[in-house]
Amino acid sequence: MKAYKDLSKEELLSLKAELEATYEDAKGKGLKLDMSRGKPGASQLDMGMALLDTLNSGSDMKTVDGMDVRNYGGLDGITEAKQLMADLMGVKPENVIVCGNASLQIMYDTVSRSVTHGVMGSTPWCKLDKVKFLCPAPGYDRHFAITQHFGIEMITVPMTPQGPDMDMVERLVAEDETIKGIWCVPKYSNPQGYSYSEETVKRFAALKPAAKDFRIFWDNAYAIHHLYDDRQDEILDILSECEKAGNPDMVYEFSSTSKVSFSGAGIAAIASSQGNLADMKKSLTIQTIGFNKVNQLQHARYFKNIDGLKAHMRKHADLLRPKFQTVLSILDKELGGLEIGTWTNPNGGYFISFQALDGCAKAIVAKCKEAGMVLTNAGATYPYGVDPQDSNIRIAPSFPTPEEMAQATELFVLCVKLVSVEKLLENK
Amino acid sequence: MKAYKDLSKEELLSLKAELEATYEDAKGKGLKLDMSRGKPGASQLDMGMALLDTLNSGSDMKTVDGMDVRNYGGLDGITEAKQLMADLMGVKPENVIVCGNASLQIMYDTVSRSVTHGVMGSTPWCKLDKVKFLCPAPGYDRHFAITQHFGIEMITVPMTPQGPDMDMVERLVAEDETIKGIWCVPKYSNPQGYSYSEETVKRFAALKPAAKDFRIFWDNAYAIHHLYDDRQDEILDILSECEKAGNPDMVYEFSSTSKVSFSGAGIAAIASSQGNLADMKKSLTIQTIGFNKVNQLQHARYFKNIDGLKAHMRKHADLLRPKFQTVLSILDKELGGLEIGTWTNPNGGYFISFQALDGCAKAIVAKCKEAGMVLTNAGATYPYGVDPQDSNIRIAPSFPTPEEMAQATELFVLCVKLVSVEKLLENK
Repeated sequence: MKAYKDLSKEELLSLKAELEATYEDAKGKGLKLDMSRGKPGASQLDMGMALLDTLNSGSDMKTVDGMDVRNYGGLDGITEAKQLMADLMGVKPENVIVCGNASLQIMYDTVSRSVTHGVMGSTPWCKLDKVKFLCPAPGYDRHFAITQHFGIEMITVPMTPQGPDMDMVERLVAEDETIKGIWCVPKYSNPQGYSYSEETVKRFAALKPAAKDFRIFWDNAYAIHHLYDDRQDEILDILSECEKAGNPDMVYEFSSTSKVSFSGAGIAAIASSQGNLADMKKSLTIQTIGFNKVNQLQHARYFKNIDGLKAHMRKHADLLRPKFQTVLSILDKELGGLEIGTWTNPNGGYFISFQALDGCAKAIVAKCKEAGMVLTNAGATYPYGVDPQDSNIRIAPSFPTPEEMAQATELFVLCVKLVSVEKLLENK
Repeated sequence: MKAYKDLSKEELLSLKAELEATYEDAKGKGLKLDMSRGKPGASQLDMGMALLDTLNSGSDMKTVDGMDVRNYGGLDGITEAKQLMADLMGVKPENVIVCGNASLQIMYDTVSRSVTHGVMGSTPWCKLDKVKFLCPAPGYDRHFAITQHFGIEMITVPMTPQGPDMDMVERLVAEDETIKGIWCVPKYSNPQGYSYSEETVKRFAALKPAAKDFRIFWDNAYAIHHLYDDRQDEILDILSECEKAGNPDMVYEFSSTSKVSFSGAGIAAIASSQGNLADMKKSLTIQTIGFNKVNQLQHARYFKNIDGLKAHMRKHADLLRPKFQTVLSILDKELGGLEIGTWTNPNGGYFISFQALDGCAKAIVAKCKEAGMVLTNAGATYPYGVDPQDSNIRIAPSFPTPEEMAQATELFVLCVKLVSVEKLLENK
């Protein structure tokens, strides 16, 4: 396959005509495909249906330590759910608070609380002229949306396969005390599927921030979300690393079973130091009498322990793997050697990250949409929704069926080719 | 029965000696009773156990309009849960957002959002020098805790059997634009069990607040929580009254099934104007991808409709009524004619409010505690936990068994007598 950049203007023009014809055909097919969000597919959700048999009218509704989950109370979660979520994150149960159904909500609350009440006695962020967050990008759009919502200035930090550019992170947090946080997806990152190296985690734990209320927002969303049996990433436990480095209060870790049990009805948790948890509870005790403990009990009894979780996730992997492989094989076959894009091949998580030629991402997403396929908005993986290179596209293979994924990827590569040819022609 | 105030010093002293002896006996019994919170008892929770049979691994997990409740999405709640909660509150489903398991959390969020983002475009409250709330009292301690947590100044408004003193409410909100809200429990109020009269609701709807971001926080926590078949309170629908009065955006209504299904795992909702809901959704869409829709579906399918809810609540009433009647009959028998206290006899809700002689509430609660019975802290029903008369005590009959309630009330009346005698002796 000859790289597109080495084609003559005439070759590009003829290729363009050919691709346009194919694209018109594709448009005629009336496709309706959605690769926009990291949503589990229906067959994946079916695998968790036995969760609903765990509790019934004959069940004992008491926790291991005798609490009636049906009544009020239990602000920080029931004992067995704490244990389960601690195992999921690789931390101790005493460092865990189990909340409602969404870790996003815990993150939002954590930022909101810092804005209104500060962090362990610091000035509430709403009383400061300027608050900034570091945002490794490409990253998770919903993280960036939270900081933007609270008027927090976002500074993009480039991602590498080992994690964020740590030279930049270290320098910025050390010199600027208005930097109060950093968003991280440390394992199978959204959207690239990168996992932070041991060195990266250790450098995070050893940060010397100017702001004493600087916190790492460690969204361990894909802790057990491997795609393969023989290719799995593991990361160091940030909580114990921070403790060892003399920064015990520097990190909040978040996780959930949203992509383990049900996306709409899982359980979510935060793990942090006793100092941070005590600070959080000062607000939490005003905010609620307790989260849904029936759902917590249901999850704890169904999955039992980390082995139960892992066994369940292997079934998910069996469903997800073919979808990822379909995408990857079509990308390889159709785009290999053309030098009009690169993509990641992650060991886990929910996404493949595609890097198009600079200035092409928006046009590709628009072309796909015109032909009936919805992708995540180009730019969404960057703060303020603006990708400075306009080149990153997030592919979410989880929701469609493998057949739909094949159709979708065929359309995607066609759009990539067409937009790339048009881009290259601009300079001929 | 002779009123205590008419007893001579000698009579009081001899009565005191007698009561003290009885109290020492009571202390010796090693009682352990909890009347502190409005918690359902275990047998009441047992009545909802069939809720857990509603969904199982064979269930159709789609809503009436085809949404898979197991997946992400459905920010404002599923259609059938909206209908159920709308019926519960007596409003239209399009005015409802169904959230997580606790209406307290929705109230907290609503205040928090106003603090950080303002209300429909108003200045965020955190940018104002002073924000005040009106607090009808005695009232619900957790309401007051929210406003106190956000540094909002609380102004006590006296309660009457028809609702808050509306002359005072009208005057204050009209003249002070720093007054941004008022806490209301309009039906079977906490702790008195009063229900707002038609006139009160209409006067609320017709308020002319100086602050355009003034909102009524209408906590309809006991909408269907009647104790009797033949003595039931009903209140006007505040949403439509506000609309009629030209103040469509002035109210947020809150409710939940916490005291219908399970206190730890019900569903909660807010009802308000389209303007307020749109304002709320701007934050909600950042905050979560959706609340627990499996729990919403479970509730909607189990209760089916308002008739299902009402039938269920009649069973609750059958359990609660004897507990209330036990308390009331002992109060009547032991304190009737003594003129050392008055109490409410509500048609519904979770509390009986006891008004002791001025300056006696704290001492009564302390005496009860010393003998093994926990009551809600005296003062808790007032802003900042300070009852200026030190006379209100909240009695929560729901959690103990009827036998325990009898024991508890016997002890309570003994402590009331003893403390009252001591108080009266101060002035002899």
